[in-house]
Amino acid sequence: MTFGKQVRRNRIFHTPTGRILTLAVDQGSAYRFDLPAPLAAIAETVRRFEGEPPDAIVAQRGLFGEILRPFAGRIPLMLQAVTITPDRSDESYLISNVEDALALGADALAVTIFVGGRTQKEGLGMLGRLVREARGVGLPVVAHIYPLGEEFRGKPTSERGVAYAARAGFEVGVDVVKTRYTGDPESFQRIVDRTPIPIVAAGGPRLGSPLAVLEMARDVALTGARGMTIGRNLWGDRHPPALLGALKAVYHEGRSPAEALEAYEAGHP
Amino acid sequence: MTFGKQVRRNRIFHTPTGRILTLAVDQGSAYRFDLPAPLAAIAETVRRFEGEPPDAIVAQRGLFGEILRPFAGRIPLMLQAVTITPDRSDESYLISNVEDALALGADALAVTIFVGGRTQKEGLGMLGRLVREARGVGLPVVAHIYPLGEEFRGKPTSERGVAYAARAGFEVGVDVVKTRYTGDPESFQRIVDRTPIPIVAAGGPRLGSPLAVLEMARDVALTGARGMTIGRNLWGDRHPPALLGALKAVYHEGRSPAEALEAYEAGHP
Amino acid sequence: MTFGKQVRRNRIFHTPTGRILTLAVDQGSAYRFDLPAPLAAIAETVRRFEGEPPDAIVAQRGLFGEILRPFAGRIPLMLQAVTITPDRSDESYLISNVEDALALGADALAVTIFVGGRTQKEGLGMLGRLVREARGVGLPVVAHIYPLGEEFRGKPTSERGVAYAARAGFEVGVDVVKTRYTGDPESFQRIVDRTPIPIVAAGGPRLGSPLAVLEMARDVALTGARGMTIGRNLWGDRHPPALLGALKAVYHEGRSPAEALEAYEAGHP
Amino acid sequence: MTFGKQVRRNRIFHTPTGRILTLAVDQGSAYRFDLPAPLAAIAETVRRFEGEPPDAIVAQRGLFGEILRPFAGRIPLMLQAVTITPDRSDESYLISNVEDALALGADALAVTIFVGGRTQKEGLGMLGRLVREARGVGLPVVAHIYPLGEEFRGKPTSERGVAYAARAGFEVGVDVVKTRYTGDPESFQRIVDRTPIPIVAAGGPRLGSPLAVLEMARDVALTGARGMTIGRNLWGDRHPPALLGALKAVYHEGRSPAEALEAYEAGHP
Amino acid sequence: MTFGKQVRRNRIFHTPTGRILTLAVDQGSAYRFDLPAPLAAIAETVRRFEGEPPDAIVAQRGLFGEILRPFAGRIPLMLQAVTITPDRSDESYLISNVEDALALGADALAVTIFVGGRTQKEGLGMLGRLVREARGVGLPVVAHIYPLGEEFRGKPTSERGVAYAARAGFEVGVDVVKTRYTGDPESFQRIVDRTPIPIVAAGGPRLGSPLAVLEMARDVALTGARGMTIGRNLWGDRHPPALLGALKAVYHEGRSPAEALEAYEAGHP
Repeated sequence: MTFGKQVRRNRIFHTPTGRILTLAVDQGSAYRFDLPAPLAAIAETVRRFEGEPPDAIVAQRGLFGEILRPFAGRIPLMLQAVTITPDRSDESYLISNVEDALALGADALAVTIFVGGRTQKEGLGMLGRLVREARGVGLPVVAHIYPLGEEFRGKPTSERGVAYAARAGFEVGVDVVKTRYTGDPESFQRIVDRTPIPIVAAGGPRLGSPLAVLEMARDVALTGARGMTIGRNLWGDRHPPALLGALKAVYHEGRSPAEALEAYEAGHP
Repeated sequence: MTFGKQVRRNRIFHTPTGRILTLAVDQGSAYRFDLPAPLAAIAETVRRFEGEPPDAIVAQRGLFGEILRPFAGRIPLMLQAVTITPDRSDESYLISNVEDALALGADALAVTIFVGGRTQKEGLGMLGRLVREARGVGLPVVAHIYPLGEEFRGKPTSERGVAYAARAGFEVGVDVVKTRYTGDPESFQRIVDRTPIPIVAAGGPRLGSPLAVLEMARDVALTGARGMTIGRNLWGDRHPPALLGALKAVYHEGRSPAEALEAYEAGHP
Repeated sequence: MTFGKQVRRNRIFHTPTGRILTLAVDQGSAYRFDLPAPLAAIAETVRRFEGEPPDAIVAQRGLFGEILRPFAGRIPLMLQAVTITPDRSDESYLISNVEDALALGADALAVTIFVGGRTQKEGLGMLGRLVREARGVGLPVVAHIYPLGEEFRGKPTSERGVAYAARAGFEVGVDVVKTRYTGDPESFQRIVDRTPIPIVAAGGPRLGSPLAVLEMARDVALTGARGMTIGRNLWGDRHPPALLGALKAVYHEGRSPAEALEAYEAGHP
Repeated sequence: MTFGKQVRRNRIFHTPTGRILTLAVDQGSAYRFDLPAPLAAIAETVRRFEGEPPDAIVAQRGLFGEILRPFAGRIPLMLQAVTITPDRSDESYLISNVEDALALGADALAVTIFVGGRTQKEGLGMLGRLVREARGVGLPVVAHIYPLGEEFRGKPTSERGVAYAARAGFEVGVDVVKTRYTGDPESFQRIVDRTPIPIVAAGGPRLGSPLAVLEMARDVALTGARGMTIGRNLWGDRHPPALLGALKAVYHEGRSPAEALEAYEAGHP
Repeated sequence: MTFGKQVRRNRIFHTPTGRILTLAVDQGSAYRFDLPAPLAAIAETVRRFEGEPPDAIVAQRGLFGEILRPFAGRIPLMLQAVTITPDRSDESYLISNVEDALALGADALAVTIFVGGRTQKEGLGMLGRLVREARGVGLPVVAHIYPLGEEFRGKPTSERGVAYAARAGFEVGVDVVKTRYTGDPESFQRIVDRTPIPIVAAGGPRLGSPLAVLEMARDVALTGARGMTIGRNLWGDRHPPALLGALKAVYHEGRSPAEALEAYEAGHP
């Protein structure tokens, strides 16, 4: 590993556990034509985390300004390079790149692509180009890579699909793969074990309760994954900073979800 | 913000109210195969504003010559980077760029794109490249970004579509978003409030009367938007400079539309 | 003239009289090893002009940050491209360039050189390169050009020397020549008349009193010069903003020096 | 300030006091033909700081490999861009640059130059180019700028010389000036007060005892300087990590030098 | 270390001992106006090693054709990037570069420079640029770096000078330093121990006998150096391939010089 990549990787995986809880606010206009309220009020949503920041944040370029300034140089920031047209949700395209990430002081370039369907070719090709550009400057590339096409239709979290996505990312040469959590620690651990680079679990679709989110964190912590990236299950909660605190307790300190939930609820009666 | 961008942003938003009335003459061949008379007679149309210039002008590169010379260095000029083939009205393409804007002394690069349909991908990708190029030289990028595709067909001024357009522009990293006025100040203000960068309202389709234009100015002034960009509703009027004067009275000085209309009519019996 | 140069020239010569009073704070480390107090306390010195700014400011690159931010986009700023080692005071060398001027939003590149002696060759060569680079991007070049070498030793303000300097600058292709005031309006007017580009008079060495400065302004106003650039005679005064007000009264409004002095003294008993 | 520069500046000035104790190991072959033992045994010398690292390290490019790997991503690292031939000790020249700093994940580019003598011209010109290159990518430039030429011969720490050096660095546009400590807090504070950018004090020539080093730290802490960069007075001590601990106690926690010395000696009987 | 550099480094240090005996034929026109016979008859000289090749060869670009074809892909080849005008023997200049090394399949770029005198500045600056260019493509740079200037006049193999050269090369960021053998294993080992990158000993000036060469090999093997690069002491011998065999026996297999000499003489009665 080059020295520069080592610097940035160490900044990313900076916690005592070596695992990171990343706040994802990179969905925005790539996600739905109608944004849920917390994404619509993005400035306010992000500001709530100033007091107790997440281990990292991944965001679009536009946020690398007033919105993220309170976090500049305090926690690692990752630049999402692509966006998506919501009604063509399997097709991502570049709006930022390696040069932007360096100039903005980001510690990684995140790149969302989809495998298993019609856009795998375009997505992996784009990823390949970015991996090449990032190498010379020591910038880690984090593939947000998901099974989504014909092959995996209706089974977005199947072990088969997630394992395929992780492998495709690894083979292209990215540094970290972020992909869907399969829903159970056994199958996800098998994927982690077989992927020679760090895996990060995506928080996935909205779960029913804070307890369910905390239980997922407990399970993911068992798998050897190097992190969880949580979006709607965090900013979509009624008390995001409190939930982040509870997640840290479970994910980093090994507290039980029930215990962490109690503290969460005590803080927000 | 870099010093150079601060210089140019301050030149753009130079009025006491911090809001600007921009004359748009960037429609021309991008607009219709058959131009309305005032756009056809572009030299004469622009010349009428020499006495009382608008707060800013946005125009195609060709106008940065004899046409705009009387305004050079007196008011901020913005270079429209793209044009459109009239019968493919959702697809814009570059004819000028960052280098042109600098060489011509423009204070911003305006870039029209459309979201919600088949050209969102190409448009946002192009915008992303221009934002990157403009960053190093401190040139503000103003996205003229409109909901227009399948998703928003028939609803070009819906709050839902306009909010989506504003958000997409913000996420790409532009400095100012110009988008359609929703038609009522409440909904537009909601969009302004949630967008972390300045919003400018487009004057939109031809209104029926000077009074309607003045009423729109009054309403937009309530929303927190940083400006109005008016084209056909200004140069399409029978007395453009007089209407501009009336607009300034309403928009900058808080006169009522009725009062301003009276002055307008008194000046042009 | 290219359009971009017209824009920037109009911004520079923006006053009703078309003449500008420029505050020079570009001397600093190029000037003396021991700075006079007002230059040493540069932040405070410049800040005093925030309320009533000069018509323009010329400064080194380092000031295009917090120091000049209050003036960004409000008045034209000119970037001094060179510095000087104080004990080799006839030899200037580049520390900034055309690219810097554009990125910082400067309206001109100022370049100090000396003619008549051993460094004329190097100085005019450097000026020639900058004029070429500036042409393509429409950036005016203002030569601060002074007679100083063997030929003019001991006669730094002789009409012969100043005329030579102005001519040398003109021939290289600069847009504006700033040079020493000869001390009397007749001789300076002859130089202005014979130089086909705008001439600006340097404020020169410290004069004995505010009245002397005001009288120089009155005289320069008679010559057809397009401006005065004042450094130590302005920031070196006990009441710089008041003196600037008095200078404007004399230079732009035709008040008599005595009358302006009275207002100056009334304001600072 | 651009976002990327903000990120890197915040990483540099990351301590609770906002002041940093930087370990300088950038002297090596630039310093003397015969290295003192701790510099000669550079791997061992740096390794001793792994347990309790300094707030930052400045080093030549060759150390950005095995030597600095234990610090990668944990503390800010600054790349020294130049070296010097020991018997021409007033003349520095580039061996690394902005591209290297980015690729190696450095948070700043340090550039040593000298003013007041024959190499001021070359040094400031080089610094000017690096500042320009660094601007676009958000990389802070730290000038190590020292009075050394004819003008300041024999008076390397005079207030006059140090003030001149700080001013020259500021005018070129660097982000931080590191220069010689004048030896007393009153004069150094005057320099800090008049320089509109952060000043860092160089540890300077070998002091006689740990107590003298700690007293200097106490004094520098009073001046408003944003840091101290210590080389020989730290790695040249018999117990560098213990001395660093004592320096932190004095510089960051306000302990008295005597008290800190006691702890230092207790730890190393 | 990047993967590509690891590939090439492993190819270079491929022997069981991890140390390499490199044949140097890069002296040629850089060496003397009148070449010694074996260098003059370069094709024949190199051809003699076809049967039992050295561990590596360093040569000028012109030899990467018919001359070196028999070794292509069999042993690592290093491209010497510079040449020297014989009567200015302290000043090297580029005739090949990183692109050449890649195109020719060389496993390293060798770059000869001199330190301690008037050309140190130019030499280290050139080396710095080559290190930067080589980094992105994973090409090792081997500095042939020698003490030679005023400081080390008459003492080209002093420990002091050699240590300085090794340190200067390391600090610039090269991968391997080849420098003069000091003449005794104790002092050379001290240099090896203190240099954090591999050191290779240059064979140096003509020794009197094969035995002296073998004794040097025995000594160098004790120092921890990663290789010996031998030119005139190998191709200048009467039986170069036999001497190479004897050197391998001593250097790689631990035979005594006397024993190896016996075999050498037996083979060439």
